[in-house]
Amino acid sequence: MSKGTDTRHAILDRAVALSSRIGLCGLTLGRLATTLEMSKSGLFAHFASKENLQLSVLERATESFLGTVVRPAFKAPRGEPRIRQLFENWLRWAEAMNIPGGCPWVQYAAEMDDQPGPVRDLLVEQQKGWMGILAECVRRAVAEGDFRKNLDCDQFAYELQSLMLGWHHSARLLGDPVAETRARQGFETLLKNAR
Amino acid sequence: MSKGTDTRHAILDRAVALSSRIGLCGLTLGRLATTLEMSKSGLFAHFASKENLQLSVLERATESFLGTVVRPAFKAPRGEPRIRQLFENWLRWAEAMNIPGGCPWVQYAAEMDDQPGPVRDLLVEQQKGWMGILAECVRRAVAEGDFRKNLDCDQFAYELQSLMLGWHHSARLLGDPVAETRARQGFETLLKNAR
Repeated sequence: MSKGTDTRHAILDRAVALSSRIGLCGLTLGRLATTLEMSKSGLFAHFASKENLQLSVLERATESFLGTVVRPAFKAPRGEPRIRQLFENWLRWAEAMNIPGGCPWVQYAAEMDDQPGPVRDLLVEQQKGWMGILAECVRRAVAEGDFRKNLDCDQFAYELQSLMLGWHHSARLLGDPVAETRARQGFETLLKNAR
Repeated sequence: MSKGTDTRHAILDRAVALSSRIGLCGLTLGRLATTLEMSKSGLFAHFASKENLQLSVLERATESFLGTVVRPAFKAPRGEPRIRQLFENWLRWAEAMNIPGGCPWVQYAAEMDDQPGPVRDLLVEQQKGWMGILAECVRRAVAEGDFRKNLDCDQFAYELQSLMLGWHHSARLLGDPVAETRARQGFETLLKNAR
């Protein structure tokens, strides 16, 4: 990678981290410049507009999510082991990437659902892509014989996504010390019902 | 109720509706004044500060949630019927109250989890109260014999809350036409596992 690409990625990693706490709407070039101790004009040279910065942050968050959660899980065998690995990586990814506000997708989703425009459009496309990856892994688990043939794979993906949203709510907002235990217990019930 | 109280409630209902779309952080006295076509100084006379407005919005949202979701459900018999009614009322409350951005708690939770202060403190207290009400209804359902004796009632409440967060994500962000069907199917599975 060129030095320019490195710099851009380093800036965007900090922007993902910041936006996990203050949201995409609060992520102005001025605010990011202050955090990075850079000049606003230097940032402007990279991103040109707040909207372009927001879009770049979403793209960088997806690269990070694919590299930390999805691709490592695909090294596990197809079927239930791969779904377990996705779940484990997902629980850990914000921490692994030094993202202080927890999973930024939860923040972005609640924030952008009523803000029409290109940023929302990209987020929706990314989230649909993720739900598609999840459902496809569940279909593989059916094909491998780990899960029953009549399983509704999209319903499984929906319920797993729900459990992760519940975990974020319980751990990050309520500070419940057993939040992760509850998420794991819900996940085990989901697997049991799928077998 | 006095005319002053009526006016205050009417202002706060509009503020709840607005904050369901733009969040609590975006809810300034100036922005609300524009929406209401009121003078900013008139609003200032009611709320004195943005923080006081945010706290009043949370209190009003709770009154609305208790009056639309919780109290009507308590007219249903204890046990599973009451939990079903809570679920139904919860699915409908944002619509019933003309709150355009869907359940404002989802918005507030994602937004405030990294914003320490009195607003977050009140929100956490309210959300813990709600989880307590849910878990208590589940314990009643165990006592009534609708659910099995060894059921983990707090886990049930966690999973039900998760399903609602998943529904909001799927319906409001992804615009999935079967989001409600999925939430209902997840709810039926939860009930079945609890019996």
